[in-house]
Amino acid sequence: MGYIKEHCGLFGVYGCEDAVEKVYYGLYSLQHRGEESAGIASTDGKDIICRKGMGLISDALDARMLKFLKNPVAIGHVRYSTFGSSNIENAQPMLVDYYRGKVAIAHNGQLTNAKKLRDEFEGNGSIFHTTSDTEVIVHLMAKPSVSRQSGLPGVLNQLKGAFSLLILTPNEMIGVRDPYGFRPLSLGKLNNGYVFASETCALDQIGAEYVRDVQPGEIVSISKGGLRSEFYSNQKKHAFCIFELVYFSRPDSSVYGESVHLFRKKLGAKLTEESPVDADVVISVPEGGNSAAIGYSHAASIPFDRGFIRNHYVGRTFILPQQDMRHRFVELKLNPLKETVAGKRVIVIDDSIVRGTTSKSRFGLLRKAGAKEIHARISCPPHRHPCYYGIDFQQKGELIAANKTVEETRKFLNVESLSYLSVEGMMSCTTQPRQNFCNACFTSDYPTNVNEEMDNVTDSFSVDEAERLSRCVIK
Amino acid sequence: MGYIKEHCGLFGVYGCEDAVEKVYYGLYSLQHRGEESAGIASTDGKDIICRKGMGLISDALDARMLKFLKNPVAIGHVRYSTFGSSNIENAQPMLVDYYRGKVAIAHNGQLTNAKKLRDEFEGNGSIFHTTSDTEVIVHLMAKPSVSRQSGLPGVLNQLKGAFSLLILTPNEMIGVRDPYGFRPLSLGKLNNGYVFASETCALDQIGAEYVRDVQPGEIVSISKGGLRSEFYSNQKKHAFCIFELVYFSRPDSSVYGESVHLFRKKLGAKLTEESPVDADVVISVPEGGNSAAIGYSHAASIPFDRGFIRNHYVGRTFILPQQDMRHRFVELKLNPLKETVAGKRVIVIDDSIVRGTTSKSRFGLLRKAGAKEIHARISCPPHRHPCYYGIDFQQKGELIAANKTVEETRKFLNVESLSYLSVEGMMSCTTQPRQNFCNACFTSDYPTNVNEEMDNVTDSFSVDEAERLSRCVIK
Amino acid sequence: MGYIKEHCGLFGVYGCEDAVEKVYYGLYSLQHRGEESAGIASTDGKDIICRKGMGLISDALDARMLKFLKNPVAIGHVRYSTFGSSNIENAQPMLVDYYRGKVAIAHNGQLTNAKKLRDEFEGNGSIFHTTSDTEVIVHLMAKPSVSRQSGLPGVLNQLKGAFSLLILTPNEMIGVRDPYGFRPLSLGKLNNGYVFASETCALDQIGAEYVRDVQPGEIVSISKGGLRSEFYSNQKKHAFCIFELVYFSRPDSSVYGESVHLFRKKLGAKLTEESPVDADVVISVPEGGNSAAIGYSHAASIPFDRGFIRNHYVGRTFILPQQDMRHRFVELKLNPLKETVAGKRVIVIDDSIVRGTTSKSRFGLLRKAGAKEIHARISCPPHRHPCYYGIDFQQKGELIAANKTVEETRKFLNVESLSYLSVEGMMSCTTQPRQNFCNACFTSDYPTNVNEEMDNVTDSFSVDEAERLSRCVIK
Amino acid sequence: MGYIKEHCGLFGVYGCEDAVEKVYYGLYSLQHRGEESAGIASTDGKDIICRKGMGLISDALDARMLKFLKNPVAIGHVRYSTFGSSNIENAQPMLVDYYRGKVAIAHNGQLTNAKKLRDEFEGNGSIFHTTSDTEVIVHLMAKPSVSRQSGLPGVLNQLKGAFSLLILTPNEMIGVRDPYGFRPLSLGKLNNGYVFASETCALDQIGAEYVRDVQPGEIVSISKGGLRSEFYSNQKKHAFCIFELVYFSRPDSSVYGESVHLFRKKLGAKLTEESPVDADVVISVPEGGNSAAIGYSHAASIPFDRGFIRNHYVGRTFILPQQDMRHRFVELKLNPLKETVAGKRVIVIDDSIVRGTTSKSRFGLLRKAGAKEIHARISCPPHRHPCYYGIDFQQKGELIAANKTVEETRKFLNVESLSYLSVEGMMSCTTQPRQNFCNACFTSDYPTNVNEEMDNVTDSFSVDEAERLSRCVIK
Repeated sequence: MGYIKEHCGLFGVYGCEDAVEKVYYGLYSLQHRGEESAGIASTDGKDIICRKGMGLISDALDARMLKFLKNPVAIGHVRYSTFGSSNIENAQPMLVDYYRGKVAIAHNGQLTNAKKLRDEFEGNGSIFHTTSDTEVIVHLMAKPSVSRQSGLPGVLNQLKGAFSLLILTPNEMIGVRDPYGFRPLSLGKLNNGYVFASETCALDQIGAEYVRDVQPGEIVSISKGGLRSEFYSNQKKHAFCIFELVYFSRPDSSVYGESVHLFRKKLGAKLTEESPVDADVVISVPEGGNSAAIGYSHAASIPFDRGFIRNHYVGRTFILPQQDMRHRFVELKLNPLKETVAGKRVIVIDDSIVRGTTSKSRFGLLRKAGAKEIHARISCPPHRHPCYYGIDFQQKGELIAANKTVEETRKFLNVESLSYLSVEGMMSCTTQPRQNFCNACFTSDYPTNVNEEMDNVTDSFSVDEAERLSRCVIK
Repeated sequence: MGYIKEHCGLFGVYGCEDAVEKVYYGLYSLQHRGEESAGIASTDGKDIICRKGMGLISDALDARMLKFLKNPVAIGHVRYSTFGSSNIENAQPMLVDYYRGKVAIAHNGQLTNAKKLRDEFEGNGSIFHTTSDTEVIVHLMAKPSVSRQSGLPGVLNQLKGAFSLLILTPNEMIGVRDPYGFRPLSLGKLNNGYVFASETCALDQIGAEYVRDVQPGEIVSISKGGLRSEFYSNQKKHAFCIFELVYFSRPDSSVYGESVHLFRKKLGAKLTEESPVDADVVISVPEGGNSAAIGYSHAASIPFDRGFIRNHYVGRTFILPQQDMRHRFVELKLNPLKETVAGKRVIVIDDSIVRGTTSKSRFGLLRKAGAKEIHARISCPPHRHPCYYGIDFQQKGELIAANKTVEETRKFLNVESLSYLSVEGMMSCTTQPRQNFCNACFTSDYPTNVNEEMDNVTDSFSVDEAERLSRCVIK
Repeated sequence: MGYIKEHCGLFGVYGCEDAVEKVYYGLYSLQHRGEESAGIASTDGKDIICRKGMGLISDALDARMLKFLKNPVAIGHVRYSTFGSSNIENAQPMLVDYYRGKVAIAHNGQLTNAKKLRDEFEGNGSIFHTTSDTEVIVHLMAKPSVSRQSGLPGVLNQLKGAFSLLILTPNEMIGVRDPYGFRPLSLGKLNNGYVFASETCALDQIGAEYVRDVQPGEIVSISKGGLRSEFYSNQKKHAFCIFELVYFSRPDSSVYGESVHLFRKKLGAKLTEESPVDADVVISVPEGGNSAAIGYSHAASIPFDRGFIRNHYVGRTFILPQQDMRHRFVELKLNPLKETVAGKRVIVIDDSIVRGTTSKSRFGLLRKAGAKEIHARISCPPHRHPCYYGIDFQQKGELIAANKTVEETRKFLNVESLSYLSVEGMMSCTTQPRQNFCNACFTSDYPTNVNEEMDNVTDSFSVDEAERLSRCVIK
Repeated sequence: MGYIKEHCGLFGVYGCEDAVEKVYYGLYSLQHRGEESAGIASTDGKDIICRKGMGLISDALDARMLKFLKNPVAIGHVRYSTFGSSNIENAQPMLVDYYRGKVAIAHNGQLTNAKKLRDEFEGNGSIFHTTSDTEVIVHLMAKPSVSRQSGLPGVLNQLKGAFSLLILTPNEMIGVRDPYGFRPLSLGKLNNGYVFASETCALDQIGAEYVRDVQPGEIVSISKGGLRSEFYSNQKKHAFCIFELVYFSRPDSSVYGESVHLFRKKLGAKLTEESPVDADVVISVPEGGNSAAIGYSHAASIPFDRGFIRNHYVGRTFILPQQDMRHRFVELKLNPLKETVAGKRVIVIDDSIVRGTTSKSRFGLLRKAGAKEIHARISCPPHRHPCYYGIDFQQKGELIAANKTVEETRKFLNVESLSYLSVEGMMSCTTQPRQNFCNACFTSDYPTNVNEEMDNVTDSFSVDEAERLSRCVIK
């Protein structure tokens, strides 16, 4: 829907002549995880070189570098900013010099104690060049009292919140997941080399084979000596982000060992069970609703058909000259198919309703195209609570579910019926114990003590909106 | 599939304050009809101003002009070159001065007697600034012996082949279709103004209402006096391009009075009838195969599922720095969904096989993803013959259907079965008499005497490949 | 001063492997003759390829083409528009197809009968793609009734006004001057090849040797057979533009056989003679006044010193985002040298006063820097009359000399004294009979019957100012 | 000559509504001090916003920001890298967060103990984001043990070497010079506000009045409370860089209280005295030799004339696509004036000879243009020693004066005579005690103990040449 933003995708390749090129193409498969900036750091075993830029990969990175940088180890990153403003300083990988030399780091997730750590560091005389929470991680790595005594485990044990990391030194490529495993990170193999990827679809892209997920609390280091695994945390509870499965990940990925497409088909089937309705056709709001709509159709034995046609030329423009044009392009994106809906009772499946305005406008197009009845089915529960682990929902005040009952929302959307999937229904679609997941955005059942960890993070680092606007039009 | 190219999309708006803006957004809905250049000519009733550029609309046109150009009448064009090389001189609308003042013209189709007319004009002392066949039309319009005596009808009667035209003078916007009606052109209404569009989906985009198609052989002129219709030809035979329905037009358009989506669903259903096969799942090669796959699934009662996931970030880059990157991006575009196909008997629907290499590679991905059986079903007959009316197939030597039998093709593609739709099957899906259509690319049954009309057109105007390559990398 | 614009520079190279590269660098030496667009057409003996773009050479042409285009014959053009608006269609060389194949043409000068010829052509059915007067030349070349019977001489004899031309066909490179020789064109030799250049400084640049000027009324054709000369006109009167010597040409050029630097030094010496004044220092307004100031200083035995320092980073920006910035950059360009002028009686030499506003502001800076007396000396007479042969003065109403007496101008400029050079003084500085020159902009003594030749040219082709402004900000 | 690079220019404005705009235009006057990157940091009293980019100001900064950023306090910087590689991370002002909030810093000069301080900081756990020596200054400012106890003076007293600084906090704009005063920094007044500028020519540009120089060892702070001055060092010896006067500063600047133009004229006069020669004409190699040539001419009573014409369109291109083109553009820059030198005995004044190759080629052009005798006079002594205070000479091995005697150099240059100014001659042209200046690049008489302060700085921070090249062509 364009209003919920994941913040990052990670991809790393160790041990290929064309590692930089592979990372470049692998990032394309993860572009949906971050459209604001992209970067690649690579090493020849001595030095590390980092290229980054603003916008989509095609704008941010000059593809001609693929020819020049024949470094055999590389990590890449795509970013949407949840924490820290959107500018080139905050683009990742972050490359710094410290007492051991150069290190580059790429981070997916959000630290809940970043503000506290940062204040502490500043109090002790450190300077910060960025507003990204990732910078505290490199400060910890550089602090001899931590790093010399307890190494990377010692560093990681000071972090709270969500973090999947790729770390690149001249000698090693390291993949890390936080002890809860909030964000995914998978390990693949490509010939004699290794690959890390936020989602398995990126492994497919470069022909790598999925090996396994990096485990929560695990450090996987790849070097000349091969792969070495180490666990740095005794914490046993997992908190896989359910929203990755429901919304963010690509359907052709396996995340936390779950096939995203199958999971979403199950969501659709569960919706049929929970909120059946007699109708002529099942359609989806592309692309998000596609898998669930197929699941619904099969389970309900109501035919699936195309209800909207997506204009594939729209929406890839990073910076539009004027704000009003952004709105215009949202409208351009989907056109309803009259032949499918005219005179019909239509079940329309979507994966979320955020502010409600886009949904209202799209359902309105169906009505105008002649739909007799519109039955909206949402393949997850209403989300009413902020995420502190790396998902950027709208402000709570803007979430329709936080302000209106389902019936009020139905009236607002002007549809015959509206049903969300229940939390139980959603959780029942996973193949794992449901306590392995974090679903706090639906339930407010936060797996960590965020009140204690955080300290008005959003206030102190909020981006001034005027600055944000000005960034859209000027360099 | 990327190998068959339509050449143009037309869009015109008369009588709105924001006509230029409406044409800009309307062209976005027609972008699939031409990705090489885009242009908009508009008038304030006195002068005509024309902006054009190379590439996709977002690259070719500066959206900031929308603010500046408040002209109430505008026509726009997107182009892929079938005839004449791809450079800014050939971009349209073509704006010229002649004895009556300024005129801008936008053309969809291909003239079969362009070379003859051009030779004649050059022999009589004319100069040509472009290699586009459209330039002969403006020469004819400028020729007093034709234009003064017999007006626009006199001009149009000298043209052979396919042409839908938009013509803009300071006083009028005119829409024209050739007597056979090869290419579509529809007329819409927007408040008190009028709209022309190659496809009706563009009318939807700006909220215009579909009125009717411009008829074959009809001139529709819009001016302050309102709409005026005139027929310039007694030719009665129609030759609507069937390929518009099968392949080119957007599914949410009505073309020649046919709903494209419904037509394609019928193609799928017909395929079930002609080539049934026992299988577990029906998938499509997106986007082209989607509608037919749904039709097939419904008719065959075999469940439809998603078999490929499309990367929406790929393929919008107009000019890639290096040729080998183009190939890489084709690969990036579709990733198979293992969960759908593994261990299954799969029916895969596509809308065409051109050279066969892309299909082979995609079916190969399905096999690698674990498909037990692959049954390819193509929603049109094999195309074996060149089109002289504006579709750019590959060279005949490259068309797999021109060189291999269906069985040979099946072996080449390494699939369990392969069936094309029959010509009869395809034609039976239209709601009109089948003699209204041109299907010469499948049957070689050309509706006009192309041998007589043409004169080695392709040879004399072929674009030198070296020049083409150099254009990719330098200005 | 930025208000008087020459329109073109020509450069052609025949018979070098790197002809395109040589033309590229040669054009850099002629950039002062046209900053609005640049183009190069080159041939391999079969086809002609043309590249052009808007702005300075560095913006307009992609230097990477130098690698790709190894054509041994090339002509280039830089342009400021006097006639026809400033857009890419009007950029030159103009490349067209006609009955004999392809031809590219580059033009310096202005035809006085362009409007008449154009009207005639349009009346007979021709179309015009540009608003440039050059297009009538190619129409004439294409007209078999002219070209077949009397060839290029027949074509050229129909043209009135000023034209130096380079013409490129697959077999020949041709240089032409009009019978009056209004605009310069010199011939050089480089190894076994030939070179044409508007000014000899461009010959120096590529290491070519100056051979001679193309003569008024001469056609010089270079082909495999070598150089061939032909005179097409019996007209004997010459009319070399004196303004080339006074103002436009680079001081390191020889034009019409005159050293520009020496000529300007003589202007300065003559000024001393005509308007002596007791003073402490002679300074110039760079760059235009430099040579004359040195001449003045030597003749008057008053020391020359630097009075203004030029900021070399300013003024090369083709398109400034906002109009008010243009003004700001003019101010940035020159800073007075206090040490030179404070407390001194200063003679300041400039090569022209157009509207007077820039001069006023610059002399004001000298006053502010402490100059005790300011004696302005202008190295040419006041120009009061329009040029119809290719120089774009301001509108007559804006020329200060057309509206104020010298004394009124002096008061306006707020200087102690102001003297222009006399017409006689100026003409006496040439080494040739003064009747060889056109000085109509000073005297209104037009060498051709412009009233008869022209037909309200400026009105009918004037560029709409609004359009001009919009071109500055949008594509 | 293009081989000696200064590293920075500073400009700051306090207390104007259009401070950002004024800094933008002021930097244009300092562009000669750094062409690699440019940046502006500004504050509204609460936050600091920083914009920077690579290349000339016109490329690096989007002029449209001038409209948006109405902050009343701003500092700007142009940079050429002497220390630290040339990339966007190293562009200045450097903006960081530390315990007191945000601070931006702009630095002209070079620290001699940067490596030592950096190693110490890294050893204590600090991280470095850039390779610029400026980053150690902000680390020192952030270190509570220094900054809380002894404030900015305590920080500055730990720095060795050359530094003029502008420091911007939300409340203050501060100007600092190192205790030796190696680099200039002047203070101006504009209405009720204050201005800092590396050179006074930039004050002229925005209409500000020169007040005085910031003194060596002085901190000048501007805040709401007005201007406050403080001296942080008891060091009495000054070491003004003589090379600023000889070579770097604009002639229209006053630097260290000396008029640059007058100083250079004196150099020329002194050359006449030290190395008289009978000749016909004095010319200069523009622009560097201009002032000295005029001084020489006046003192020797030999007429000054223009000997080279400079192409003002060349040399402003920051990054050329290919290395060989850079060389070509150097050649394009100056063309000799045959009329001035042919058959003459020519004295040619230049401000330096670095490697000798460019000089050789330029004197060769004079010979080719017919000069009978060439007497080269260099307005400073041979420079043979590295500068550790911010000037980037070529490697010592490349300095012709470090490897050849004057006579050998004369032969290499193929001129009739060659004289450099003596150290005594040069120093005698200042109006101050000569011990106030550093002339170590000529004498190796370093004012500070560089051996002790430095620790192989150049080795450890040298930019890898391959990286440098790759930066030229890829992002």
